[in-house]
Amino acid sequence: MIIDVHGHYTTAPAALGAWRDLQIAALKDPSCGPRPSDLRISDDELRESIETNQLAKMRERGSDLTIFSPRASFMAHHIGDFQTSSTWAAICNELCHRVAEMFPDHFVGAAMLPQSPGVDPASCIPELERCVREYGFVGINLNPDPSGGHWTSPPLTDRHWYSLYEKMVELDIPAMIHVSTSCNACFHTTGAHYLNADTTAFMQCLTGDLFKDFPPLRFLIPHGGGAVPYHWGRFRGLAQELKKPLLDEHLLDNIFFDTCVYHQPGIDLLTKVIPVKNVLFASEMIGAVRGIDPLTGHHYDDTKRYIAATPHLSDQERHLVYEGNARRVFPRLDARLKARGR
Amino acid sequence: MIIDVHGHYTTAPAALGAWRDLQIAALKDPSCGPRPSDLRISDDELRESIETNQLAKMRERGSDLTIFSPRASFMAHHIGDFQTSSTWAAICNELCHRVAEMFPDHFVGAAMLPQSPGVDPASCIPELERCVREYGFVGINLNPDPSGGHWTSPPLTDRHWYSLYEKMVELDIPAMIHVSTSCNACFHTTGAHYLNADTTAFMQCLTGDLFKDFPPLRFLIPHGGGAVPYHWGRFRGLAQELKKPLLDEHLLDNIFFDTCVYHQPGIDLLTKVIPVKNVLFASEMIGAVRGIDPLTGHHYDDTKRYIAATPHLSDQERHLVYEGNARRVFPRLDARLKARGR
Repeated sequence: MIIDVHGHYTTAPAALGAWRDLQIAALKDPSCGPRPSDLRISDDELRESIETNQLAKMRERGSDLTIFSPRASFMAHHIGDFQTSSTWAAICNELCHRVAEMFPDHFVGAAMLPQSPGVDPASCIPELERCVREYGFVGINLNPDPSGGHWTSPPLTDRHWYSLYEKMVELDIPAMIHVSTSCNACFHTTGAHYLNADTTAFMQCLTGDLFKDFPPLRFLIPHGGGAVPYHWGRFRGLAQELKKPLLDEHLLDNIFFDTCVYHQPGIDLLTKVIPVKNVLFASEMIGAVRGIDPLTGHHYDDTKRYIAATPHLSDQERHLVYEGNARRVFPRLDARLKARGR
Repeated sequence: MIIDVHGHYTTAPAALGAWRDLQIAALKDPSCGPRPSDLRISDDELRESIETNQLAKMRERGSDLTIFSPRASFMAHHIGDFQTSSTWAAICNELCHRVAEMFPDHFVGAAMLPQSPGVDPASCIPELERCVREYGFVGINLNPDPSGGHWTSPPLTDRHWYSLYEKMVELDIPAMIHVSTSCNACFHTTGAHYLNADTTAFMQCLTGDLFKDFPPLRFLIPHGGGAVPYHWGRFRGLAQELKKPLLDEHLLDNIFFDTCVYHQPGIDLLTKVIPVKNVLFASEMIGAVRGIDPLTGHHYDDTKRYIAATPHLSDQERHLVYEGNARRVFPRLDARLKARGR
């Protein structure tokens, strides 16, 4: 079985974006804005947006199941206040839930949180609980920078975030650490901000001792870990300078990397450098890079081809990357699959 | 000949740091602060700080010449105002000049600029000219984020920076794009901010058309290009989405990467993915990572070992990485070496 742990609903019907535009236009006076019930997307529209896009490509490429969350760049937690994010997150999560209900063999939900800059992350707990307990979602996306490129929140190791971690541990769900749109002109969203956030989150964990306080806490760092595996020697050396334990012991029971690295040499490095137990298959399809690589004739984000071709994985290890690790890191996914006899 | 294009004076005598502390303590009333002439470092102290550190390691590891600039984390352009940075840059550059005069076969200077957040970069030109014309420096370090982790300046492709680029082209010098200390708690200086800045700078150039306006302009992106080579497929794909030319044509006449990547798999990837003409030998010794890698028994930052061992370079290509490319990217270095019969 091949599980893609990183998919977003980037192909939602246009009505969703139109609703959001109205919400943003009414930020100064939300009473003039749209109500959640104003958004109407039929089952047929939903089905079509998935069947002709993500599901078609999953069938074509041979992956079975995608952990599916709202579009990352649309989270835009910097817009409006907590109420803005709260309404928006509820709508986006509900759509992913409908997709997962419609295609239970192919999609399982992960939640966007209603984060807002300067607001206590504990405010996200009701939406999180609803998604996990009512919708059966198996994970969350946690934005370490709800300001959208200004980095005004404390590091992930700060007590600021602890209420959320307590809830994650209680529910036994991991978080993918995923920023949203950059509103800082210095950072291109998918070409700089995403990768920088991945590197930043890893280094925050390296300098701190978060996992001493929360031994079962699990973070999935997307986009192949940003710059981290390429600079693994640097990070091992920095941990040494900072008198931290070896990275294996210090971080690798709690931090995992996905395989959203869009060329063979990158995946070769990732699978050579990072222990196999810490690598989870993902493609972020359909996402930031949708084209065909002229060097290979295949889609850049068809990462399964790179995993299949890397010389650094045995068949057994490949199975861990495709399925075993995802079941371990997302125990609620594993339980759900077992309940369905898979 | 082996030229290390990335060295900082990280081992300056303690008097330098003490002078800076006094300068910072007097920020509110600079008239109470130290005068430049209060800093006294003898030739013997200077010699010792180099001979027992950088030069000793260069001899041990077998590199010949280092392009030497003031300590990057000490630039701290966010502290004080333009006058603060101006006095500080002049002092730091003069020390590097003294080192280069003392060891002309082993060190050549590159300038720190007196940048200050919100101040027109044209204000840096007098110090830049002094360093190049009077001191014989061959390059500069350009900080794309003088705010120190808040990223309040426009992207490098903005006209904000153009006066500096005009001077660089006139003098035929490249810039290493190098940030300084992060004063944003989210970003560890050497473990996140440096690498993020490298990725960010590359992506700014990718989205813009800077090198159409300045065809001879040359940027050296340090630390192996941040996350860029590891995600080369992502960047090729993003260029495609943005309807830009192939990266080779769009950026690789103007952007170069150093080899400050502290493990073999990283250097293997860099030399496999990036054309050899764009890779310049460097170690940033003595810098962020000073320890010995327990996996190899050698210093993490002894990057020459990785270059020597990578299977992706022929002897001729290795010569380009060690020497030829540096002479091409730093023509004033080449002229200086030729004048000395090298």
